[in-house]
Amino acid sequence: MAARVSGSGAPAAHAAHAAEASAFLAACRRQPVSHRPIWIMRQAGRYLPEYRALRATVDFATLTRTPELAAEVTLQPLRRFALDAAILFSDIMTPLQGMGVELDFEPAPVVREPIRSVAQIEALPQLVPARDVPFVLEAIRLVRASLAPTVPLIGFAGAPFTLLCYLVCGRPSKEFAAARSFLYAEPEAAQRLLMHLADAMAQYLAAQAAAGAQALMLFESWAGLLAPREFTRFALPAARRTVDALRSAGVPLIYYLNDGNALMPAVADLEVDVVGVDWRSDLGEVRRILGSGKAVQGNLDPAALFAPPQELCRHADAVLEAAGRTPGHIFNLGHGIWPDTDPDAVARLVDHVHEHGR
Amino acid sequence: MAARVSGSGAPAAHAAHAAEASAFLAACRRQPVSHRPIWIMRQAGRYLPEYRALRATVDFATLTRTPELAAEVTLQPLRRFALDAAILFSDIMTPLQGMGVELDFEPAPVVREPIRSVAQIEALPQLVPARDVPFVLEAIRLVRASLAPTVPLIGFAGAPFTLLCYLVCGRPSKEFAAARSFLYAEPEAAQRLLMHLADAMAQYLAAQAAAGAQALMLFESWAGLLAPREFTRFALPAARRTVDALRSAGVPLIYYLNDGNALMPAVADLEVDVVGVDWRSDLGEVRRILGSGKAVQGNLDPAALFAPPQELCRHADAVLEAAGRTPGHIFNLGHGIWPDTDPDAVARLVDHVHEHGR
Repeated sequence: MAARVSGSGAPAAHAAHAAEASAFLAACRRQPVSHRPIWIMRQAGRYLPEYRALRATVDFATLTRTPELAAEVTLQPLRRFALDAAILFSDIMTPLQGMGVELDFEPAPVVREPIRSVAQIEALPQLVPARDVPFVLEAIRLVRASLAPTVPLIGFAGAPFTLLCYLVCGRPSKEFAAARSFLYAEPEAAQRLLMHLADAMAQYLAAQAAAGAQALMLFESWAGLLAPREFTRFALPAARRTVDALRSAGVPLIYYLNDGNALMPAVADLEVDVVGVDWRSDLGEVRRILGSGKAVQGNLDPAALFAPPQELCRHADAVLEAAGRTPGHIFNLGHGIWPDTDPDAVARLVDHVHEHGR
Repeated sequence: MAARVSGSGAPAAHAAHAAEASAFLAACRRQPVSHRPIWIMRQAGRYLPEYRALRATVDFATLTRTPELAAEVTLQPLRRFALDAAILFSDIMTPLQGMGVELDFEPAPVVREPIRSVAQIEALPQLVPARDVPFVLEAIRLVRASLAPTVPLIGFAGAPFTLLCYLVCGRPSKEFAAARSFLYAEPEAAQRLLMHLADAMAQYLAAQAAAGAQALMLFESWAGLLAPREFTRFALPAARRTVDALRSAGVPLIYYLNDGNALMPAVADLEVDVVGVDWRSDLGEVRRILGSGKAVQGNLDPAALFAPPQELCRHADAVLEAAGRTPGHIFNLGHGIWPDTDPDAVARLVDHVHEHGR
């Protein structure tokens, strides 16, 4: 049992203390930290043998819908590595299932009936988290009871446009062509779907915060496929609607934008605490564009974990250098860790960032 | 028979005249033009019923390896639309096959034995175009004999890093993870492979120019997956090696970089005439970064062709506006046209750009 996971339930007083002692939460708020905080996108997942062992006994959907199992998987990387935050093990499609969208896992989620008509959009119910996804909220409570007080738990959801991509296309694709042509061909229907999803995700994230999540992250995985004008017209207002509804939740808000280099000037106007940056952007340049009012999170290339040990440290140093010494940097990969990554490389990276990122 | 394809072989004198009368070639050299030139990436291809009819009778590989058929497919879009340039119908993998790399088409090209070792790299022969890919050079001669004198023919090749992606991964993938981790894990081997490919593509493109191609384009489809430092370390020097070898060919050089917004400051140093820009970048901002010494080509979102007619014109106008009035803009999509595009939308786009892009 490592330092980051406590042996039994942490009393509420400890949880309150966590907020103060957490380098991650301090960095979210652009406060000075004693060490550079680090966590890793998809840190709970397939690169860990203990995750694969559990998955051999239970399918992915069951894992996300069983609070004890979701909590166990969430905690697995914290037992191995001195990570500065945990992130709930779940899937961005989970709340859509709660809203009645039927999915098959092949193993990637496939929407049985893609949404392309106004009638289908109007038929989508609103999400009532305590009724529709109670297992997510219970998983959050279980994780919080087991986490060391200095390690906050991040809750998350898919950003509205990213969810639209899956709903319209039905399955993941390289181009998400059907979703992108839908914006051009049916802009009013697209707006309607986006606003519905924005409200649903606001409800979902607010419920996660109420259950104990100490930071909230919106994953905008696919808006980087949009031209800047379409991003500003469709994806950004929808994300803003979710973000605006969450400001009263009292926890830091993180907006991760994949492949968003050209979109950063637009993102500068989004009122979030932290912008997650993928590996293709220069972190120093992004900080300059976003201004002093936002922290940044990122952005080592997941491929860098395949470099020899000395080289990996050099690549991590380049990220630290680009991020600079101004408070407000959370170290992370620029995208989810790859399933064939060696966990020992993760251990080296975490230790190096803690030692050298002061 | 439309104006852009002549009924019989054009005499050499006409071909010489073409260079002067071509809006496309003038724009490549940043000279004033009477109308904004336009051509469309993948303009010869699956969205055309006449292409699908031909493909129903012959497989893709045969199409690219039979000069008469490759020439016919190259000319098909020119019969329908008043395009300002033709581009040879071929595949970026074709010269690799000529170098002995065994491919299967499923239908996307799959490398039978992915290249990951120094021994494999050392075993790669150099490309001798007249011996290894004579059918490509013959197709160029056939197209040139049939094209109207005002319409130049573009020859092309894959940029070295993009070819490395296919050779290392074996097949197209979303992340090209194996290729990217190869750069980090085996940087010397990667450099060696890149330089070999750079030399081969220089030979290949020089032979295309000698056969009659009036402009040469390097397709850098996947270097946008690299972080700026890795782009500058690996992909850019390899592209530069090809480009430097071609400066004496006396034809404009175009470097198309997909998803390259963060990489444009580095590309500004590459000595090409034209930079092709994908739809995710703001064209005005890219021109500012590249400076006055380069023309730009692009960058309408392929998805915009699914907008209603009036809206499509509005989207095209936004590209024209972003490109500005300084000479040196060739209108194009920001990526290849999608197979389910309506050819009538292409006709509308071409006419609109010609009328409004003065």
